[in-house]
Amino acid sequence: MCQPPAVGLSVTLSVLAESAQAPAALVIPSAPVGEHTDLEAVLAFARECDVVTFDHEHVPAEVLAALEADGVILHPSRAALVFAQDKLAMRRRLTDIGIPCPAWAQVRDAASLQAFGDQVGWPVVVKTPRGGYDGKGVRVVSSPDEVADWLADAARDAAERDAADEHAAAEDAAGSQGGQDEVPQDEVPRGGPLADGLLAEEKVDFVRELAMLVVRSPSGQAGAWQVVETVQTGSICTQVLAPAPGLDPGLAALATEAGLRIAGELGVTGVMAVEMFEVRDPQTGDPAYLVNELAMRPHNSGHWSIDGSVTSQFEQHLRAVLDLPLGDTSPRSPWTVMGNVLGGDYSQLYPTYRHLLARDPGLKIHLYGKSVRPGRKIGHVNVSGADLDDLRARATHASDFLQGVITE
Amino acid sequence: MCQPPAVGLSVTLSVLAESAQAPAALVIPSAPVGEHTDLEAVLAFARECDVVTFDHEHVPAEVLAALEADGVILHPSRAALVFAQDKLAMRRRLTDIGIPCPAWAQVRDAASLQAFGDQVGWPVVVKTPRGGYDGKGVRVVSSPDEVADWLADAARDAAERDAADEHAAAEDAAGSQGGQDEVPQDEVPRGGPLADGLLAEEKVDFVRELAMLVVRSPSGQAGAWQVVETVQTGSICTQVLAPAPGLDPGLAALATEAGLRIAGELGVTGVMAVEMFEVRDPQTGDPAYLVNELAMRPHNSGHWSIDGSVTSQFEQHLRAVLDLPLGDTSPRSPWTVMGNVLGGDYSQLYPTYRHLLARDPGLKIHLYGKSVRPGRKIGHVNVSGADLDDLRARATHASDFLQGVITE
Repeated sequence: MCQPPAVGLSVTLSVLAESAQAPAALVIPSAPVGEHTDLEAVLAFARECDVVTFDHEHVPAEVLAALEADGVILHPSRAALVFAQDKLAMRRRLTDIGIPCPAWAQVRDAASLQAFGDQVGWPVVVKTPRGGYDGKGVRVVSSPDEVADWLADAARDAAERDAADEHAAAEDAAGSQGGQDEVPQDEVPRGGPLADGLLAEEKVDFVRELAMLVVRSPSGQAGAWQVVETVQTGSICTQVLAPAPGLDPGLAALATEAGLRIAGELGVTGVMAVEMFEVRDPQTGDPAYLVNELAMRPHNSGHWSIDGSVTSQFEQHLRAVLDLPLGDTSPRSPWTVMGNVLGGDYSQLYPTYRHLLARDPGLKIHLYGKSVRPGRKIGHVNVSGADLDDLRARATHASDFLQGVITE
Repeated sequence: MCQPPAVGLSVTLSVLAESAQAPAALVIPSAPVGEHTDLEAVLAFARECDVVTFDHEHVPAEVLAALEADGVILHPSRAALVFAQDKLAMRRRLTDIGIPCPAWAQVRDAASLQAFGDQVGWPVVVKTPRGGYDGKGVRVVSSPDEVADWLADAARDAAERDAADEHAAAEDAAGSQGGQDEVPQDEVPRGGPLADGLLAEEKVDFVRELAMLVVRSPSGQAGAWQVVETVQTGSICTQVLAPAPGLDPGLAALATEAGLRIAGELGVTGVMAVEMFEVRDPQTGDPAYLVNELAMRPHNSGHWSIDGSVTSQFEQHLRAVLDLPLGDTSPRSPWTVMGNVLGGDYSQLYPTYRHLLARDPGLKIHLYGKSVRPGRKIGHVNVSGADLDDLRARATHASDFLQGVITE
C-alpha cells in the first residue's frame, strides 16, 4: 500500500519479499525474495537501499544490529523499534515517561503472577513480551495455572540465558579473543523469547477502544491524525470510525499529546499507531485513556486515511522515513468508515466485488492480493461522507458480502 | 498513473514499454520492452492480456486490425479509436450526429483552402488529420501559402495511394490470389498520413476552453465528471479548474449530454476527454460550446480527479475497460485546481520538491519519473479546498517553482 503514493512522489521502492507471490511483490518491480530472519539476505538487500523500513515488527534484533553496524539507515531505528517488539520494554518505558497504562507487572513465576492478580483483581491479561512466540501471545486468565506452559518456557529460557552468560564470563576470564564479529553482541536482547518472563496486566474495564495515529520524521517534524474508534468483534478489529464518534474534546487533545510525546520520547521515525482504551477516571468519572499497544508502521487503524485524509498514512510514512516534509493530516470528509475484509467462503473475490461495486459506486475497495483463508485480513473498504450511520451500514454490508456472511 | 488504483482493485497490469526506463516500467513489474508500431511485439504482448488499452492514440491502424483479427479485446475498439486518430473522421462523424463543431472543410489543394478561408474568414486553422506527422500538426494561417509544404505532401500521398490502388486492381483483374494475410486490408486507412488531405477549421473566437471527461463501459454504463476549465498559456494547458468557475448550468448540462452522446454514438469504451470552446451563440448571445478535440484515454484535463474526485479517471478507466461497474464521479471538494509541471532549469527535482512540500503540506505532487526536458510535462500538482483564488495561487506557485521560473 506504499506503492500508490510512491508512484506520485516518484520514490522507487524495493521490497524484500517472502515469496514472488507476496502482495508487495505483485506491484513493485524490484522485489528480491528472501527471509527477514536471514542476515545475509537482508544485508544484501539493504545495501542497495537509501533507507530501510518495515511492514512488521518481527525482524530479529541481531539482524537490526548488523544492519546498523553496516551503516544501513533504518527508520524506525533499532533503539525505537524495540518498544514495539518487546511489550515489557514498552510498558517500562511508557511508565517512566508518565503515560497512563493498565496496571502491569513483569512476572517470572506463578507466585508473582498470583500476587499481581490478587492485587489488581482476577482475571488478568497475560502476554508474551516478544512476537513470534508460539500461539497468539495473549491470554485472559483466572489463575496462574492457565499459563503454566508459558511460565515453564520462561523458566527454561531464563536458565538457558544464565548458563550462556556464565559460559561467556568463563571464556572472558580465560582470555578468549573471540567474538569480534560486526554485531555488537552486548546490545542484542539475550535468551529465548520468554527469558525476561511474562507481562501481566489488569483487565481494563473500558468504554471502547481508540487508536491514535502519529508520524515523526528524523529531523523531528511530527503530525497526528484525528483519534479514531476501533470497533472489535470477537478480538478482531472489524471497523474503524474516523473520527471516534462523540469523543470528548479534552480526551482527544490528551490522546493526541500522548501519541506525539511517545513518538518524541522513544525516537520513533515513520508512522506509529497507539492503541488505547477509553476509560472513566475512577476518581472523577472523567473520560480518560490507557495505552494498550504500539505499532511502529502504517497500521490497520490508519487504513481509513487512504481515502479519508489529505495525506494517507502510507504517503506520510514514505515522507517521514525519507525525511521529506510531512503532509496535511486533515480529514477530507466529516466521517470515514473503514471495514476490514476477512477471508471467507470465496476463493476468488472478483465475481463478488463486481456485485459490490455495482451496489455502491462510492465504495473504495482495497484488496491485498493475498490468497483467501478464513478469518485472514485480505482487504478493506473505505466509505466517506456526512452520515455516519449510513457509512457504517455500507461498510458492514461490503465486509460481510465479501466474506460471504451475506449473499445480497 | 493507472498503477495506484490497480493496486487497490487488485488488477494486475502489464505495459508494453518503449524502454526499461519508461515511467510506467518503473512502477509496474510486468513491463516488456517493445515498440507500439512493431506488430510482432504488440501481438506477443497482447496475447498475454485479458484486455488491451492505450495511453496514446498512435498505434497504427494495421496493428489494431491485426490485434482484433487475432481475437484480442481492445478498449477502446479500433472502430472507436479511429475518431481520436483521424481528425477528419472525427469532424465528419460529430457533424453527422449533430454535435456543434467549428466550421470545417476537408481541403486537398490551395484552391479549396482559399475558398474555405474566404467563406469563414481568415486566419483559419489547418490541421494534419493524423498524428505522428512531422511537426506539431496545427497551424494558424492567413493564406494557403503558409501550408504549401503540407499541401504538396498531401498531393504526393494521394497520388501514391491512387497508384497503389490501380496496381491492386490490375492484380485482381489478372486473377492474383495473394493478400490472404490476417489483416483485413480493406478496413485499414490507406496511403500516407495526408492522403485524405488536410482539415481546415474556422478560428473560433472563444470565451475560454472547457473539457468534459466521460467514461463508458462495454456493457454501456456511462458516467461524467464535472465540466472543467482548461487554462492555456501560450498553446500549453497550464492549469485545470474543476469545476469550471461560473459556468452556466444550462451549458454544463448541454456539454455533459454531448460528451455522453459522443461516447455512446462512437462506441467509446474507457475514459474520453472532449475538449471544447465556450462561445456565445451568434444569434442569441447565450453561452454555447463547440467541440475542439477528442482523446480516448485518461487525459491531462482529468488529472484533477486523482485527488479531487471519489473515483479518479485512472481507476474509472480500469473499471471501464474491464467492464466492472463504474465508480462515483462526484467531487470530494468544492474546488480542485490542477497545475501542470513543465520541465525547466532543474534536472533533479528532489531538492526542489522538498522545499515545496514544506511550504504547502496540502499540495499533492504527482511526478511522472520522466527525464526533465524544457517545456516537457513531467508532472502535475493538485490542490483542493473551498477558496478557488487561494488554490490557483498555490498551484501556480508550485508549477513555477518546480519549473525554476521562481526560486522562492
